[in-house]
Amino acid sequence: MGNTYEVIIVGGGPAGLTAGLYASRARLRTLLIEKGIFGGQIANAAHVENYPGFPDGISGLELGELMHRQAKEYGLETVAAEVYGIALAMGGTVIETTEGDYLANAVIIATGAEFNRLGVPGEERLSGKGVSYCATCDGPFFKDRVVAVVGGGDSAVEEGILLTRFASEVILIHRRDQLRASRLLQERAFANKKMAFLWDTVVEEILGNERVTGLRVRNVKTGSTSTIEASAAFIYVGQRPNTDCIGKLLSLDEEGRIPTDGRMETEIKGIFAAGDIRKNSSRQAITAAGDGATAAISAEKFLIQQ
Amino acid sequence: MGNTYEVIIVGGGPAGLTAGLYASRARLRTLLIEKGIFGGQIANAAHVENYPGFPDGISGLELGELMHRQAKEYGLETVAAEVYGIALAMGGTVIETTEGDYLANAVIIATGAEFNRLGVPGEERLSGKGVSYCATCDGPFFKDRVVAVVGGGDSAVEEGILLTRFASEVILIHRRDQLRASRLLQERAFANKKMAFLWDTVVEEILGNERVTGLRVRNVKTGSTSTIEASAAFIYVGQRPNTDCIGKLLSLDEEGRIPTDGRMETEIKGIFAAGDIRKNSSRQAITAAGDGATAAISAEKFLIQQ
Repeated sequence: MGNTYEVIIVGGGPAGLTAGLYASRARLRTLLIEKGIFGGQIANAAHVENYPGFPDGISGLELGELMHRQAKEYGLETVAAEVYGIALAMGGTVIETTEGDYLANAVIIATGAEFNRLGVPGEERLSGKGVSYCATCDGPFFKDRVVAVVGGGDSAVEEGILLTRFASEVILIHRRDQLRASRLLQERAFANKKMAFLWDTVVEEILGNERVTGLRVRNVKTGSTSTIEASAAFIYVGQRPNTDCIGKLLSLDEEGRIPTDGRMETEIKGIFAAGDIRKNSSRQAITAAGDGATAAISAEKFLIQQ
Repeated sequence: MGNTYEVIIVGGGPAGLTAGLYASRARLRTLLIEKGIFGGQIANAAHVENYPGFPDGISGLELGELMHRQAKEYGLETVAAEVYGIALAMGGTVIETTEGDYLANAVIIATGAEFNRLGVPGEERLSGKGVSYCATCDGPFFKDRVVAVVGGGDSAVEEGILLTRFASEVILIHRRDQLRASRLLQERAFANKKMAFLWDTVVEEILGNERVTGLRVRNVKTGSTSTIEASAAFIYVGQRPNTDCIGKLLSLDEEGRIPTDGRMETEIKGIFAAGDIRKNSSRQAITAAGDGATAAISAEKFLIQQ
């Protein structure tokens, strides 16, 4: 059957593409389904400095395309489609897509996650130009500059502290009058002389033409608005894992991610998860790629056992 | 103190170098200790096809050097030394090396693993003169020659198949009457007309003066010995994790590897393990690199909480 594969991979970021490389190179009949461009979240990164092997950095788009080309060298098939359902069936798993149904013996879910947006003017336009959702990735670009962090949870505070290693000042903007982050992180943050806090404050607009120059903020108690100067806005208001296609097939953790073991196996035999979609992912291109290789090796072993 | 670091990484393969990149880029004062060349096991590989981002392949030596250069860009310090002890002490962990002692707040163990030797006469003497543990590296030297492969697992069979690209015949010598390798690999091997199999057979000696000329083998069922002519012996009889420096500090699994959780944390707070040295590693350059990134991120979080 033309629509039947040994392995079907959902998602074409570093996790999915590496799974595709490994599965194809192991001579498994493999299909990768991606609705957009290859590279996933990293395709939005103008300059990736922390993918090992590229000491001069590389654009995320180029890295995604190199990974794609490499997997194709070994026979990976791809289709541009959106997956709207994954269901168990006789003889495998059915992947329901906008381009028709496909049947797989093993499935690797690598659909990733998206950072929640604030949804304010300037945010999308200045994304990658000072608006960032990853301090580990982009913090080093703002040495000796003032940067803003938006959010009050563990990620916001932890990444804020991390940013003090680069920035001259880190202004944490939170809509409430206290943080949600763990007490320990709060203590570290309050003890850090480079950190300042704007309480009861929401962002109304991110300002700048070519680059972020500041943020227009509003105090929710007084209603007064003001402008703060900053070279970057790091936004930590949660992530949304892309699990719409999974429906009720797999149970998810409290963040909406798929629990796996170290071999990327989910609770259902023959279904694997890799990259940002899985619980406890480190959410880096290199860790997603590692996950993808492990998932493909596990899928190969699963198929041998069938 | 000059010998004090926030993070010390032991081992300069893909896991250690990626940990070094991430820790240095996070502006942690980081030292990487490597006794030999950078790249670890992969430095022996002439042509790496499955590290994502290099569709035309890359030599392992070059990949290791690119990773090394990238980490140095962000300030990673390195020292050429052998680590002979890791011990808990007041204020951190002491790393005892041939170049003196170093003190670390967090330690990432990325010492990797080495290939097991057969331990037969001729093996060491003819190493690099026909005795090899890396078909990818040395296969091209044996074009149109008869070569032997020793072992019956995935590596032995996979590398045996690879060698048929060069050799006129590949004789796989296995001590049992069936292979342990995956079904797919077995099928590929049995279907390959250049491959021959010597079952129930062990190697007693590797023969030759300047170069390998043959192997003396013994059938374990009949007890009879014979000599086969071959220009090379590729040995794939497992790996030995490099845990000598760990002593009794950490408990190891039955293979001698370090158990970790998904965040690369060992049983001791502040000590992490990454790559082939850890239990359940997928033993690929890309998975080791992913481990290294995760270990560095975990070390960073550990240090924030100190």
